[in-house]
Amino acid sequence: MDIREIRATDWAQVWPIVRDIVETAETFAYDPSMSSSQARDTWIEPPPGLTVVAIEHDRIVGTAKMGPNYAGPGSHVSTASFMVAADARGRGVGTAMCRFALAWAKERGYAGMQFNAVAESNHPAVGLYKQLGFTVIGTVPGAFAHPTMGYVGLHVMYCAF
Amino acid sequence: MDIREIRATDWAQVWPIVRDIVETAETFAYDPSMSSSQARDTWIEPPPGLTVVAIEHDRIVGTAKMGPNYAGPGSHVSTASFMVAADARGRGVGTAMCRFALAWAKERGYAGMQFNAVAESNHPAVGLYKQLGFTVIGTVPGAFAHPTMGYVGLHVMYCAF
Repeated sequence: MDIREIRATDWAQVWPIVRDIVETAETFAYDPSMSSSQARDTWIEPPPGLTVVAIEHDRIVGTAKMGPNYAGPGSHVSTASFMVAADARGRGVGTAMCRFALAWAKERGYAGMQFNAVAESNHPAVGLYKQLGFTVIGTVPGAFAHPTMGYVGLHVMYCAF
Repeated sequence: MDIREIRATDWAQVWPIVRDIVETAETFAYDPSMSSSQARDTWIEPPPGLTVVAIEHDRIVGTAKMGPNYAGPGSHVSTASFMVAADARGRGVGTAMCRFALAWAKERGYAGMQFNAVAESNHPAVGLYKQLGFTVIGTVPGAFAHPTMGYVGLHVMYCAF
């Protein structure tokens, strides 16, 4: 699998992945009815951040964005988000992208990486993050309205470098 | 003290309050060099959010913004931010604005209010929020670079309605 910076011409392949995840509304606290251009504005990180795609056999199977979590006095902590195409899950795409983001942030001197809103029902993501060194800092009770499971907590997770 | 929705003509009075707080960089994880127009874009909440000003003797002494903390499946939890002019602190302006925001969010049916990044060194704010029903969900260690105290934690705080 190859992970490289997103190109303008990739969006036609990336948008269906993003749209599916956002519409399903099981993992991301994004507006499920967001348009392609709104999604692009949300997902494409301006410098110093970065948005990448994961490519398997010439096909984009995942995308990730990374950058500072806050500005100014909070800009030494990074954050990242990951999306994997539904039919490419369980094959290590998310793991590869998360390792990429951690390496990217460490190289740039960030002090750690924070995830602000991980649905506690998203067991694959929570498990992966824990495996890669993240701990749950706290959980905001019922802060995520899951379409079938009802209100579930949102974890704040952190990995110090 | 009166609290009302911000008007376009208020910005000339609000910007110096925002600029002072952002430049001092002791409490907000905002870019300390942000311009007036960047600050306005950050601070003025589009609907369904709201930005207000607190007025004492015809003078704006504080400002607050409130709205959904996340979109889509996270939009039933509110958030808010508060700024009080340096020479108006310790007189209950922040308390009045926080009570206003809580009442606003309760009236609109939000399930609770979350603060994402409260510097643990900001004792007046942390104390006030606790007094009004917030608890510390967790603290991201060293996530805020305080100009004189060094790296301090950022609290995630929550108040369920």
